[in-house]
Amino acid sequence: MLKVDLNSDLGESFGSYKIGEDEEIIKNISSANIACGWHAGDSLIMEKTVKLAKNKGVAVGAHPGYFDMAGFGRRNLLVSAEELKSYVKYQLGALMAFAKSNGVSVEHVKPHGAMYNMAAKNYDLAEAIAQAIYEVDDNIILLGLANSQLIKAGEEIGLKVANEVFADRAYMPDGTLVPRSKGGALIQDTGTAIKRVVKMVKYGMIEARDGTEIAIKADSICVHGDNPQSLEFVKNIRKALENDNIQITSLRKVLK
Amino acid sequence: MLKVDLNSDLGESFGSYKIGEDEEIIKNISSANIACGWHAGDSLIMEKTVKLAKNKGVAVGAHPGYFDMAGFGRRNLLVSAEELKSYVKYQLGALMAFAKSNGVSVEHVKPHGAMYNMAAKNYDLAEAIAQAIYEVDDNIILLGLANSQLIKAGEEIGLKVANEVFADRAYMPDGTLVPRSKGGALIQDTGTAIKRVVKMVKYGMIEARDGTEIAIKADSICVHGDNPQSLEFVKNIRKALENDNIQITSLRKVLK
Amino acid sequence: MLKVDLNSDLGESFGSYKIGEDEEIIKNISSANIACGWHAGDSLIMEKTVKLAKNKGVAVGAHPGYFDMAGFGRRNLLVSAEELKSYVKYQLGALMAFAKSNGVSVEHVKPHGAMYNMAAKNYDLAEAIAQAIYEVDDNIILLGLANSQLIKAGEEIGLKVANEVFADRAYMPDGTLVPRSKGGALIQDTGTAIKRVVKMVKYGMIEARDGTEIAIKADSICVHGDNPQSLEFVKNIRKALENDNIQITSLRKVLK
Amino acid sequence: MLKVDLNSDLGESFGSYKIGEDEEIIKNISSANIACGWHAGDSLIMEKTVKLAKNKGVAVGAHPGYFDMAGFGRRNLLVSAEELKSYVKYQLGALMAFAKSNGVSVEHVKPHGAMYNMAAKNYDLAEAIAQAIYEVDDNIILLGLANSQLIKAGEEIGLKVANEVFADRAYMPDGTLVPRSKGGALIQDTGTAIKRVVKMVKYGMIEARDGTEIAIKADSICVHGDNPQSLEFVKNIRKALENDNIQITSLRKVLK
Repeated sequence: MLKVDLNSDLGESFGSYKIGEDEEIIKNISSANIACGWHAGDSLIMEKTVKLAKNKGVAVGAHPGYFDMAGFGRRNLLVSAEELKSYVKYQLGALMAFAKSNGVSVEHVKPHGAMYNMAAKNYDLAEAIAQAIYEVDDNIILLGLANSQLIKAGEEIGLKVANEVFADRAYMPDGTLVPRSKGGALIQDTGTAIKRVVKMVKYGMIEARDGTEIAIKADSICVHGDNPQSLEFVKNIRKALENDNIQITSLRKVLK
Repeated sequence: MLKVDLNSDLGESFGSYKIGEDEEIIKNISSANIACGWHAGDSLIMEKTVKLAKNKGVAVGAHPGYFDMAGFGRRNLLVSAEELKSYVKYQLGALMAFAKSNGVSVEHVKPHGAMYNMAAKNYDLAEAIAQAIYEVDDNIILLGLANSQLIKAGEEIGLKVANEVFADRAYMPDGTLVPRSKGGALIQDTGTAIKRVVKMVKYGMIEARDGTEIAIKADSICVHGDNPQSLEFVKNIRKALENDNIQITSLRKVLK
Repeated sequence: MLKVDLNSDLGESFGSYKIGEDEEIIKNISSANIACGWHAGDSLIMEKTVKLAKNKGVAVGAHPGYFDMAGFGRRNLLVSAEELKSYVKYQLGALMAFAKSNGVSVEHVKPHGAMYNMAAKNYDLAEAIAQAIYEVDDNIILLGLANSQLIKAGEEIGLKVANEVFADRAYMPDGTLVPRSKGGALIQDTGTAIKRVVKMVKYGMIEARDGTEIAIKADSICVHGDNPQSLEFVKNIRKALENDNIQITSLRKVLK
Repeated sequence: MLKVDLNSDLGESFGSYKIGEDEEIIKNISSANIACGWHAGDSLIMEKTVKLAKNKGVAVGAHPGYFDMAGFGRRNLLVSAEELKSYVKYQLGALMAFAKSNGVSVEHVKPHGAMYNMAAKNYDLAEAIAQAIYEVDDNIILLGLANSQLIKAGEEIGLKVANEVFADRAYMPDGTLVPRSKGGALIQDTGTAIKRVVKMVKYGMIEARDGTEIAIKADSICVHGDNPQSLEFVKNIRKALENDNIQITSLRKVLK
């Protein structure tokens, strides 16, 4: 039976500040990427979110980002590979403490925002992230953009890697995402988006922006739960996948 | 053979800012309390300090503090027990990642500054710290002020606890420290200080400020290495202890 | 004609995090206390909120707090008078830059949360705040709890001071607030709350918890706009005041 | 009589962390660029440094940087022009509060590190900085790299601008600095460095790396006081300038 993971960013609230409908989106996903207090989240929210994921049987993953809460970790910061490596270890370790004290393990790491995007294109940064994870626990799965340097670095370091795809994004002929700054970066039509994601999971193929068919591995689909529409979209994706006999399950089972 | 641990706060540098002569003091101690990036230190310094401790055969401990670098974690902050518990887990976990990736384990936790002092007197806060450690790893030793609520809470939670004493501080008849704000809080004479510390280790007794002899357990002595005089003082303490056939060794061996 | 000011805390959003219905509450108040980026807010929000206040003809005030965004500035932090003085100057100056560049002036300072509460009881801290304001601009009004040390310090330093009262809080016989931790701290009934606030403004009297009538000066009423109910409450207070021929206007006009 | 300003970065200490020999370097300069608490410095240090500058008759300037103390503001951060503009206003305003309360005015703004370097090349960022200053106080001088976009933007916005040159750096034929990553970026020989700086001030010319003579305006020379050698170097520059009848004085007098 075909398998795929649905992942979402959770635990992004901070102190008195609330972001995200975690209680709702958690019901629809198989992997939670939990913010680690640098670009979002805090220690109380981390513990709470780990408990929530555990209760719902959702896999716990670390979602490290740059120390830039004002920019929500979305702004490129020129860090060295050595700095980045230590940032990932620090945040991963912090989440592991909450996982361990709740009797679960950290199953994966997915870098956030600018860290994710920079590492998708820059092998040195990608390698730093992969090394950080490997040195802390070589059984943790690295979740990164399909066809990116991050996937390549993870494989070369010896980690299990999971390819992430986006239902609502257009792809370049080389398998990378069309930048948001370019026209046609977003797939606006929900029906089209869902058909595309099913096709990626089922056939490992997607039509790029220029019409060519390209290969893409879809181990996990990124979904959001910020508002009623996005929640509705997730439910529709689930339904479409299940109608096609595709099982939604955690990364570790998908990768087996 | 009598045993005692010498502990010191390390890894307090931050970014371009340097504090402490870590390379020198490390040669003279058996346990390093490593700052975890909240009141001092950062992720690069943590990794570097863990490596330094490993290379010198010094036990690695976490030194969590309040998120208050401007105040160096020395200012009381009115936190809830729940907040405090999550702060300790977060920082302990972060250090564990660096320890794990360097093949060593975190042997102890010693809270820093205001967190240490508040927990010495407030059982609820002390309990929160002890619970945090216990839930993450019940084999970690809690290092706290001798005769304090922190020691009491650690014992009740089921942790191994280590009693810390100060060579250069005067004691109240109830076994607590004379506050720095009071006269005679500091033992100024080096010779006296060293004699006092040897007596505490050897006989488990110390003369309180009012002249009464009180019981005190000395598992570990806190030492500093900020300047040439403090380094000299540490060397003199070592010499005095060794002359008295007291072995300086890690907390775990002291507690056996 | 009797006059009173309605003040509310604004500009508490931060980066991607949103708090408060500023666009709505602003329509109902005469003074905005704008967060200065330490306990809430950021530089972008500050500029935006100053513009909003200017457009609505609402007086701009600085709302400095402790550097503790995780605790929203509500947790007591043991600072020295010297530290506190510099904190107020820093945050006041930052807001003045946005005021100046938008052609308005900072009319008042109201400390936030723990800073407000600590200064209400501790004269040294109150004096530090008053001195900070006085040294930066002795024409700025200090807005503090009626009958508090903050009001006393402001007067002694030579600042104009404005007494703040709370519609929904009970008072002690000495004119201070019944602590939230005590029973009966909150006035639950809306009608009662509104009658009490009108009485304070009109007669300078309020019934304390023990039934005695005490004197209280009401230059400004603190209101909130976090949710539909609080907005409704503000509108009802306005209506009641206007029905009683009390003019709602800025602090500077109230104090004349 | 020829005039030139000597500027140096001051007030970079933070909490318990000390950087820079401010007390020594201040004796040798005419303008102090004071860190504003984002990349270095804090509110206590700002007040102290303003007092120090005032006492020594040295002009006070703001030295805003990115909110990145771990990276000392030296790491490029991809900010928008709108964000940057608000960052400069915020930090400038904060320093103005300390200046105003000490009876001096902020004479200039010199962006720090990555902010300085990014604005030297990117006109949009340069314009944001110039606008921020202009909107807060159009009498403040913008101090930036000679021949940079920052100087150009300052002029176009209508600010007084001051061109900064470096004694120890090589120049490209287009008047920009040879990047530190390239060979020959630094002028190692002290005698040569001093001759070059005198030539820039006296003749407005410098020999670029390829041997061509290029025009450069030297209103201010950047000097450092971190260690005995750099202090010695500053003293030698002063002596050479004075021997050549060049007066060392504040930016405002240089620009007249």
